[in-house]
Amino acid sequence: MGIKDININSYPGSEKIYVDGTLFPIKVGMRKINLTPTVTIVDGEKVFSDNGYVVVNDTSGVYTDPNVETDINKGLPRVREQWIADRGDVETLDGISSDYGRMRLADKSLDEIRFATRHNPKRALPGKNITQMAYARAGVVTAEMEYVAIRENLNNKQLGIDSYITPEFVRQEVAAGRAIIPANINHPEAEPMIIGKAFAVKLNTNIGNSALSSGIKEEVDKAIWSCYWGGDTLMDLSTGKNIHETREWIIRNCPVPVGTVPIYQALEKVDGNVAKLTWEIYRDTLIEQCEQGVDYFTIHAGVLREHAELIGSRLTGCVSRGGSIMTEWCVIHDQESFLYTHFDEICEILAQFDVAVSLGDGMRPGSIHDANDRAQFLELDVLGELTERAWKHNVQVIIEGPGHIPLHKVKENVDREAKACHEAPFYTLGPLTTDIAPGYDHITSAIGAAHIAWWGTAMICYVTPKEHLSLPDREDVRNGVIAYKIAAHAADLAKGLPGAQVRDDAMSKARFEFRWKDQFNLSLDPARARQYYIESRGKDDKFCTMCGPNFCAMRISQKICKELND
Amino acid sequence: MGIKDININSYPGSEKIYVDGTLFPIKVGMRKINLTPTVTIVDGEKVFSDNGYVVVNDTSGVYTDPNVETDINKGLPRVREQWIADRGDVETLDGISSDYGRMRLADKSLDEIRFATRHNPKRALPGKNITQMAYARAGVVTAEMEYVAIRENLNNKQLGIDSYITPEFVRQEVAAGRAIIPANINHPEAEPMIIGKAFAVKLNTNIGNSALSSGIKEEVDKAIWSCYWGGDTLMDLSTGKNIHETREWIIRNCPVPVGTVPIYQALEKVDGNVAKLTWEIYRDTLIEQCEQGVDYFTIHAGVLREHAELIGSRLTGCVSRGGSIMTEWCVIHDQESFLYTHFDEICEILAQFDVAVSLGDGMRPGSIHDANDRAQFLELDVLGELTERAWKHNVQVIIEGPGHIPLHKVKENVDREAKACHEAPFYTLGPLTTDIAPGYDHITSAIGAAHIAWWGTAMICYVTPKEHLSLPDREDVRNGVIAYKIAAHAADLAKGLPGAQVRDDAMSKARFEFRWKDQFNLSLDPARARQYYIESRGKDDKFCTMCGPNFCAMRISQKICKELND
Repeated sequence: MGIKDININSYPGSEKIYVDGTLFPIKVGMRKINLTPTVTIVDGEKVFSDNGYVVVNDTSGVYTDPNVETDINKGLPRVREQWIADRGDVETLDGISSDYGRMRLADKSLDEIRFATRHNPKRALPGKNITQMAYARAGVVTAEMEYVAIRENLNNKQLGIDSYITPEFVRQEVAAGRAIIPANINHPEAEPMIIGKAFAVKLNTNIGNSALSSGIKEEVDKAIWSCYWGGDTLMDLSTGKNIHETREWIIRNCPVPVGTVPIYQALEKVDGNVAKLTWEIYRDTLIEQCEQGVDYFTIHAGVLREHAELIGSRLTGCVSRGGSIMTEWCVIHDQESFLYTHFDEICEILAQFDVAVSLGDGMRPGSIHDANDRAQFLELDVLGELTERAWKHNVQVIIEGPGHIPLHKVKENVDREAKACHEAPFYTLGPLTTDIAPGYDHITSAIGAAHIAWWGTAMICYVTPKEHLSLPDREDVRNGVIAYKIAAHAADLAKGLPGAQVRDDAMSKARFEFRWKDQFNLSLDPARARQYYIESRGKDDKFCTMCGPNFCAMRISQKICKELND
Repeated sequence: MGIKDININSYPGSEKIYVDGTLFPIKVGMRKINLTPTVTIVDGEKVFSDNGYVVVNDTSGVYTDPNVETDINKGLPRVREQWIADRGDVETLDGISSDYGRMRLADKSLDEIRFATRHNPKRALPGKNITQMAYARAGVVTAEMEYVAIRENLNNKQLGIDSYITPEFVRQEVAAGRAIIPANINHPEAEPMIIGKAFAVKLNTNIGNSALSSGIKEEVDKAIWSCYWGGDTLMDLSTGKNIHETREWIIRNCPVPVGTVPIYQALEKVDGNVAKLTWEIYRDTLIEQCEQGVDYFTIHAGVLREHAELIGSRLTGCVSRGGSIMTEWCVIHDQESFLYTHFDEICEILAQFDVAVSLGDGMRPGSIHDANDRAQFLELDVLGELTERAWKHNVQVIIEGPGHIPLHKVKENVDREAKACHEAPFYTLGPLTTDIAPGYDHITSAIGAAHIAWWGTAMICYVTPKEHLSLPDREDVRNGVIAYKIAAHAADLAKGLPGAQVRDDAMSKARFEFRWKDQFNLSLDPARARQYYIESRGKDDKFCTMCGPNFCAMRISQKICKELND
């Protein structure tokens, strides 16, 4: 299945619906899974009993809207453009501000791979505080806030719960720093979403070419593919050639917030020579990416010169790329990290575009052995200090977390993070709960991710089966996203999120009534469920191939209920 | 890979080792993974530093011993035969006792599919208590107890821990009912293993043909395949034709304990007509299977007449096949279950062969909706009563558990089971932590299994990706076993089991030093790890394909350590 095959039909039994805002002229896209009726025979007559529908979060954007024609050469509709303009606090620049961006633009040899349509970047008017956090703190509910409130209330109407999540509640959570809405004013194509403990658990996927592989079209394809399966945000971790142009293509076609790690590109600009990294190069990279529309940056500003020595006592040293780069820079120059010393300046830049900062955990443990060690928790305390500094600039903050952690050490991570970082949302990679299963790390980490999300992690970063071994392909992306949709949903159920269990209950009822199509349509991966079923399907639909006709417990249960009622 | 390809070479870098007993002339088979040395360059010279080895539990029996020639037509060596004979408390019968077994033996048309070699069954001499529990309670350490003690102490020598698990400790746990050693005297081919909270978490796999598919050879192949990947016990859930003969083939070739659900075969004997089931048919089935060598029976004796009505309030009724059969029987006859009324007689039979009872949870929830409900916990209380009754006969007991349980309701299951069933080992199916991912239920349930095992479940029953959809094939068995090896190991780490982390640490060190072969060899599925790596391998071994040469965090870490030390 390629991008051209992604449409509403690829979610069988589903239709795209839009829920209108009441405060703003917004339309919140969702997927409605329509169920078939239950059929019973009463006095020889078929009686149909309606099973209604289930509404699920839809991260696929208009790619699955049959009324919208998409073209990756043109990019997605700019849904937020008018909302931003209506606030009247941003200006459109005459052109690109970053030196690097201008250089790339001037390079005619890049015309062939360049995204065709160019929009001049927007930036806050001088003196204006335009971030979602600034609005929230000022007591203002934005269109984005109403959008995410509607989006989080998926099945509450069916449950008789009227607006569990209100726009005002969203505002309060954002104002308190307990939730963020990553929404760069230069990525108006993204549909707003929220990351916070009080909301449904979100999942991030990573894509990106490396020096070894992957072209632009493949990366765009992978981005949309990830959104199709359910990725809530997307990090572009490209480190190979043409990352500036690749990023432009991805952002213009991505309906979810996009994150990056700017130090990767900065390092490419100095040909991989860590010693040559400077604040000026990094700063130009930030501006370049802010103007392109990156919604959040991973910044490893908590890695300090004094932490370098702690790496030696570890079994796997520093496994964060950004963290190891900055540590090396500190050691080479015997100086404090420029990310730390220039952090306020960084925040000033980010605030002009409403780019959120994801404070990177450069000291995350890369093995069970190194979990919850001194290096890790010392850095966490620094991230807490940086959180407060970012909030002073109204910059939205999330905190990155591990990594490799055995189950019994998971909760300590969440508790410490909440305390050290003043309840800023936690965003963790897995964690992997054992080191011994390369090839299956989507599973070793889904175990940890479900667990840590239950305790309060707001967003989990997926791990694919290829982790530690190679770059993921499309099938790996699918497997990684589904494993993490499972982990996120298991956590939502455990958190007692209203509405979360509606889909489970609908599935269970369909299962008990042998409504196979509904079972497929309700599942996280309808295509795979259907395929497994069809491959070994018996003639009689009324039992699974597992048990055989005499042994179906559910069929016998139905008989028992009937016998007891007769 | 077929059975003929399963040999020590299929565990790359490994050798089969045997550890001698000190109390008994026993040899405990294990797998030793030999590691390559770390190579560093000091003053231009290569310096080799030994990395030793890691010992792992080996459930593959002599199939991976290059010095033993195996032939599934002849069956495995009968390792325990002499130990049993040495105790002098069993007799060899003149022939098969069960009516059904005799009938099948007399049927010449079955000669073609019959396992060739026949051993007359053994049974306890009148008045003798031969179960491992009887011995344990009498203060006697058996060869089986020493065997499992050695088997549980895998890497303790390397850690400087001398016999963490002693044979005497094993005896105490078995005597107290907190652990069982399933070891039918008629299955001397099985290598003893122990199921108990104080020991490594075990995993059970299910195989079995249904009316729709699978022949005898395929089932034997699947059994060995499951042992090869790491299944600690194996349940034969066949419900199709020739289950008597299929079982004989499986038991004679299976190096791990084999379990069954005798009610399945009893129902086949009455052509699937539940009303026609009788105690006499069931009793004959028990004897038939005891004499074949089944090591543990799932018996749904806790399903009572009075519980039938509780099914109606559920979303998915009764999803246990055995439970639904017995409930229907109770309703049809308006009588108490014969499994319950004849439970003491059942125990008397089992005690003569040392068959353990796995008290089935006929009321396990089949959906998140039904988790931890009244039907489930009422039955659990009955299982507690039955546990005490079984223990009076010195019959070893494990308790089956759910099923479908959201994460926040998992722990209550373990706590209630321990209390209601007097710390008899808990043996759970998953649990699945959400209902919405058919096609991925090895993952939904590995999340629950890791969690429940951490809290004290002694054995977890695997779920394959095909659960709810169709019968698993070999690849599904592999995926299911590995997912559950991950869950079991994650729990062992969380429980703080000495020795468990040795393999993780060896993997992490190999990872940090780019010793790729050791990484493959140490992993739960070496073939898959190697395959993923090779498929996208770069020219330089010193970085993963994920990060590219300039971005390898571990390589940079090594540089930093060197720079700091210089």
